[in-house]
Amino acid sequence: MEALQQKILEKGIIIDDHTLKVDSFLNHQLDTSLISSMAEELIRRFAGMPIHRVLTIESSGIPLAFMIGYFLRIPVVFAKKTKPSTLSSGFYSAESYSFTRKSPYTMSVSRDFIHPGEEVLIVDDFLAGGNAVSALIEIIRDAGARPVGVAIAVEKGFQGGGDSLRKAGIPVESLAIIESLSNGVIQFRK
Amino acid sequence: MEALQQKILEKGIIIDDHTLKVDSFLNHQLDTSLISSMAEELIRRFAGMPIHRVLTIESSGIPLAFMIGYFLRIPVVFAKKTKPSTLSSGFYSAESYSFTRKSPYTMSVSRDFIHPGEEVLIVDDFLAGGNAVSALIEIIRDAGARPVGVAIAVEKGFQGGGDSLRKAGIPVESLAIIESLSNGVIQFRK
Repeated sequence: MEALQQKILEKGIIIDDHTLKVDSFLNHQLDTSLISSMAEELIRRFAGMPIHRVLTIESSGIPLAFMIGYFLRIPVVFAKKTKPSTLSSGFYSAESYSFTRKSPYTMSVSRDFIHPGEEVLIVDDFLAGGNAVSALIEIIRDAGARPVGVAIAVEKGFQGGGDSLRKAGIPVESLAIIESLSNGVIQFRK
Repeated sequence: MEALQQKILEKGIIIDDHTLKVDSFLNHQLDTSLISSMAEELIRRFAGMPIHRVLTIESSGIPLAFMIGYFLRIPVVFAKKTKPSTLSSGFYSAESYSFTRKSPYTMSVSRDFIHPGEEVLIVDDFLAGGNAVSALIEIIRDAGARPVGVAIAVEKGFQGGGDSLRKAGIPVESLAIIESLSNGVIQFRK
């Protein structure tokens, strides 16, 4: 998506060969106009596929996921990164690993909010090694639902998560795929 | 707001005299249609006031805050609940306390994303004792900006945070103010 790639080139900050900071428009300050256009573009890419529900993970996946759900008039659920309390009536959980924070974490979704037979679109702001998305897929399948696809803002292609999912037969659509951040230059996949 | 109050009566779950669970539509599963109507209603209540920026806090304030920013075509910033890493160029921080998790936490906003002289609307899903909102106000004032008001989905009136803010001269608009959860009955403020 041209507008997102332009924004990344203008406002993205390369921290190192693996890390791109986009917190001025995507995951701390939110460019509401750009994110709504991104949601519309992702909806176009999944047009014709049945989608009953959007699943994302807190926090920075929420804006894009919410807009997709808003335009499609379907519910959005965000997985929580905290272990559910004993008050809770039952959760699907899966383990993931944050390379940013260098620590494992559990993500959880209430059993009340994914139902057997549903077609679920996974949405997130970043896709790198694919750990978080794989955990969301595990949760969807545990619920007897189906991951209809994965809608991503920025994929770090060089970390391989997106291509692994594609090889496994999961449709993955990313609005910008970064092939390299080496030498301080952002290179997108053609 | 009638539609929200109805939804609370239909879907809210009273956990105890102080705790109302609304995770089926407001802070785990998201009712995208209701939340967009809530954003429109809050915009009406702050009509005529200058608003340059929306400030909320991760995670569950994000959907409502995002929709308000989307309709007003202004940026949204969400405060982070993690201490900023050393990579970061500079943050405004304030201490708050979570009664849900019974622990203090630090919220932080990058200095790049609030500017002196701006009028900032604070948005959150819940207002109880007012700790989180007070910390956001502290951050806004530290930045030399002004808190133009506080827009809330559900205020727990019996915990007093909203009324303290009103007495301090901060405009607070809540779409549903709960006066009591005693005896398993939800009572709204008239």
